[in-house]
Amino acid sequence: MANSKFEYVKQFEQSDHLLPNTWIVVRIDGRGFTKFSAKYGFEKPNDKRALELMNAAARAVMAELPDITIAYGVSDEYSFVFHKTCSLFERRSSKLVSTIVSTFTAYYVHLWPIHFPDTPLSPPLPSFDGRAVCYPTVQNLRDYMSWRQVDCHINNLYNTTFWALIQLGGLDATEAEKTLKGTYAADKNEILFSKFGINYNNELEMYKKGSVVFRDYELVEPGTHNTTVEVDNLAEPVQQSKTQSENDKKRRAKARIVVQHLDIIKDDFWDRRPWLLSNKPGKVPKEP
Amino acid sequence: MANSKFEYVKQFEQSDHLLPNTWIVVRIDGRGFTKFSAKYGFEKPNDKRALELMNAAARAVMAELPDITIAYGVSDEYSFVFHKTCSLFERRSSKLVSTIVSTFTAYYVHLWPIHFPDTPLSPPLPSFDGRAVCYPTVQNLRDYMSWRQVDCHINNLYNTTFWALIQLGGLDATEAEKTLKGTYAADKNEILFSKFGINYNNELEMYKKGSVVFRDYELVEPGTHNTTVEVDNLAEPVQQSKTQSENDKKRRAKARIVVQHLDIIKDDFWDRRPWLLSNKPGKVPKEP
Amino acid sequence: MANSKFEYVKQFEQSDHLLPNTWIVVRIDGRGFTKFSAKYGFEKPNDKRALELMNAAARAVMAELPDITIAYGVSDEYSFVFHKTCSLFERRSSKLVSTIVSTFTAYYVHLWPIHFPDTPLSPPLPSFDGRAVCYPTVQNLRDYMSWRQVDCHINNLYNTTFWALIQLGGLDATEAEKTLKGTYAADKNEILFSKFGINYNNELEMYKKGSVVFRDYELVEPGTHNTTVEVDNLAEPVQQSKTQSENDKKRRAKARIVVQHLDIIKDDFWDRRPWLLSNKPGKVPKEP
Amino acid sequence: MANSKFEYVKQFEQSDHLLPNTWIVVRIDGRGFTKFSAKYGFEKPNDKRALELMNAAARAVMAELPDITIAYGVSDEYSFVFHKTCSLFERRSSKLVSTIVSTFTAYYVHLWPIHFPDTPLSPPLPSFDGRAVCYPTVQNLRDYMSWRQVDCHINNLYNTTFWALIQLGGLDATEAEKTLKGTYAADKNEILFSKFGINYNNELEMYKKGSVVFRDYELVEPGTHNTTVEVDNLAEPVQQSKTQSENDKKRRAKARIVVQHLDIIKDDFWDRRPWLLSNKPGKVPKEP
Repeated sequence: MANSKFEYVKQFEQSDHLLPNTWIVVRIDGRGFTKFSAKYGFEKPNDKRALELMNAAARAVMAELPDITIAYGVSDEYSFVFHKTCSLFERRSSKLVSTIVSTFTAYYVHLWPIHFPDTPLSPPLPSFDGRAVCYPTVQNLRDYMSWRQVDCHINNLYNTTFWALIQLGGLDATEAEKTLKGTYAADKNEILFSKFGINYNNELEMYKKGSVVFRDYELVEPGTHNTTVEVDNLAEPVQQSKTQSENDKKRRAKARIVVQHLDIIKDDFWDRRPWLLSNKPGKVPKEP
Repeated sequence: MANSKFEYVKQFEQSDHLLPNTWIVVRIDGRGFTKFSAKYGFEKPNDKRALELMNAAARAVMAELPDITIAYGVSDEYSFVFHKTCSLFERRSSKLVSTIVSTFTAYYVHLWPIHFPDTPLSPPLPSFDGRAVCYPTVQNLRDYMSWRQVDCHINNLYNTTFWALIQLGGLDATEAEKTLKGTYAADKNEILFSKFGINYNNELEMYKKGSVVFRDYELVEPGTHNTTVEVDNLAEPVQQSKTQSENDKKRRAKARIVVQHLDIIKDDFWDRRPWLLSNKPGKVPKEP
Repeated sequence: MANSKFEYVKQFEQSDHLLPNTWIVVRIDGRGFTKFSAKYGFEKPNDKRALELMNAAARAVMAELPDITIAYGVSDEYSFVFHKTCSLFERRSSKLVSTIVSTFTAYYVHLWPIHFPDTPLSPPLPSFDGRAVCYPTVQNLRDYMSWRQVDCHINNLYNTTFWALIQLGGLDATEAEKTLKGTYAADKNEILFSKFGINYNNELEMYKKGSVVFRDYELVEPGTHNTTVEVDNLAEPVQQSKTQSENDKKRRAKARIVVQHLDIIKDDFWDRRPWLLSNKPGKVPKEP
Repeated sequence: MANSKFEYVKQFEQSDHLLPNTWIVVRIDGRGFTKFSAKYGFEKPNDKRALELMNAAARAVMAELPDITIAYGVSDEYSFVFHKTCSLFERRSSKLVSTIVSTFTAYYVHLWPIHFPDTPLSPPLPSFDGRAVCYPTVQNLRDYMSWRQVDCHINNLYNTTFWALIQLGGLDATEAEKTLKGTYAADKNEILFSKFGINYNNELEMYKKGSVVFRDYELVEPGTHNTTVEVDNLAEPVQQSKTQSENDKKRRAKARIVVQHLDIIKDDFWDRRPWLLSNKPGKVPKEP
């Protein structure tokens, strides 16, 4: 029995290949997480368990998809970066987005009991949506990452002060909002310190900087290379010998995937980790 | 602290709104399910538990997204249909696809222990990818659904015979493949019956027809209406009064979401369930 | 000498195939025609020569591209409609748009001296831009056509009154604009008639209704067929025998391409010319 | 009279903004030029008048669209390059393509009598189609340009030999084709020289290298700057003061648009003309 009569419907699929030689960022966001976090009693302004669950899921996504070179997470969102030479799934947008969203969700649900042992999940379950965006140059990519980290900082300082006003200062949400309206960063730091004795600098790095996930190799001395120029110059998918390709794969598999809370806006982070932009695995550090 | 310096990166997001007034089908597929089903010892040619888990996840997706009017599943794939007037997420492709994939995955992982109580999940976890396709007319949509159901039939007849040859006939995979090469449906039915005493017609409907998921209302008499013409004539999103819209919502919420194993190729299925194409909820049947 | 080293750049072309089974409308617009019409002293509110040049160019486009079934023009714009079964250039948007724009421009420039014998063209030359839009149903397509014709009516009534106030009433542009602000159609008709003795109904049909271009066959009795339903039901490119296809081609070639000024909003126009929606050539009328 | 009832059709227009910060190349091609060139008796293998008409039209396009930084033409095709910071028409693909195609066609038809004074155009008229492609890096752009120039060389050497075999050697097309099958560049040079005394190097540069069109400023010393790196580093549209912007505009307007026949594959061409990649106008040369 042939299926030919109906097969014409396949022609309606439209291609969604992303432009070659550009960085692909897939950002996912929790759907309805205000309600979700209320349901499970997430602590305010930050719930350590919830953030660590996000990080664990992101780590698992990177382990399953070695084409991802770096990821950055804050609150209920995570951005995953594919190197500009990446040809996974022929760079089809819906394949890339759906695979990341699905894998992330699977681990989020699967690992939930480890991070929330006392509050089992019940429907409606947590879910995430996602989208892919292309960035042509290293500068564009770094500006994207900086944008997210600046956002993290702005929101966290605001939320920390907002919830201090409520939890420690006895204000209600409307009063707290009013108090903060029009204030600058310095004002918020001042409120925290003078009213509540809180030094914002002492807050957890994970809250202030978000989480960056990447494969860990030996750091290099900054100034010994110029990866940005080299990488921007790249014009087409790098042709590697099979041996080289196998070697890279092995080194990547050996590398630990780490979650850290670092400044990714300044050059230093990128200068010391050239593999993030070059996509060439570094030296695997010796076991301590 | 303003975030303006980096915010320009938002301009790189490209719009992916799907063409208005067309049916949207989001199909999801299990990633690497050959390996996955081997790992968890899925029965061949069909694993009832695995299919029922797929159906349960699909049911949950429909419950969380009332804009879906019908879904059809077979093996490790599921197709979800949004009515052509649907304006969910402004019809953005990546939002629709990622939300469905994520919700489906969440339930698949969450409900796993109910269907596989003895084999807990372990990494790598199951995941799904997805894509959206637009179909302009009712005929296109029905041809798409027919295409999937014909595929189900072709594959299931093949697999049933293939595994009978192996499990009952003692052949190895290569021999079984060779035996089936060039055979027609009638030949396979004959092999099943004459060699193994299996009447293919007695196989489970779920295996032969796949699973169709929809909201259940009272069936209507065929021939009393012409929904296809009416719906193809639709030109723009239906303007409803608020009362009407609220009524529809209530009726939809009351309707049971059912999973059945019916012929969706013939007219009868659609004729008796005009709400599937019209998007107007039918009469909620009285509780038995 | 192989060209392989640079050929990778071809991979950057992204596909732009328009959704199958939808009507394709390519609308072109004169670029900077306010300035252009001033340069060549176009008469206000309508320049008969300029409109007839537009129509002549549109006619030529239709003659060169038999896949176009109907076109509608007003002022410095023209819309060309491809039947929903059309597969010209594999439905690639940029091919369709650029071919129409280029052919139209070629004839506009080439035929200019016939319509403006005393004012030869000089740089900057007239040019047009264009875009393609898909419409899934006959109703959508007809609503698009109606939209353009209503626009024609609204603008022409306004412009006719505006220029009467200036040319006959001695007002300047600001005063005329002020006079018309907030007026309805009835008011404008009244101004024309009471102030200047102009009965708007007596204006040229070409000015009031715009121009519709199509292949001319024998009109049919309305009510003897239901093309809309038939055409909306179409699901895939019609499979024709070679003979049938050749016959259609011959009949199309024999048909005169006419430019008329008719109401295309009401059903009558479409009912009497079923070939416009069905894409099946009608009876070629006998020479008078 | 409001037009609201039909205006919903505007929602069917889909956005086609090209990715920011990438080079846009619009390539146009003559439609059916084999037939067209036969109709007007173009000389083989190259018709000087036809090429000069192409160049004149390209020059006019560049004069009307100052956002174009460079163009390259060969045979009946022309590629126009917009700088990666270009924001013309909000980078909408169909606007950019249709405007270039239309302007080019207008001049091609308008200037025809100057280049072909004895053979007036008659329908079907010449026309062109076009498409836009984005290139992320300078290297990609240069590789695109090199690809076209290598193609020019390969084709011209082939055609020159092919037509020599026919016009001077008395072969027919099939014999000439057979003679050239499997030959390398060296073989063709040898055939030209030994059989017909033709030194390919003495052929017109326009035939061998194609035509490159750009604004002419004073050449700079190579090695005094690194425009490629600078330009690849660009992340977002350059913010200029109004004065700066006005100055640039004036200098661009003063610059002569030249058509030359140079090697654009080697670095030298680009190194001596940094304005092509930087988009900053150079020094306008003194009138000779």
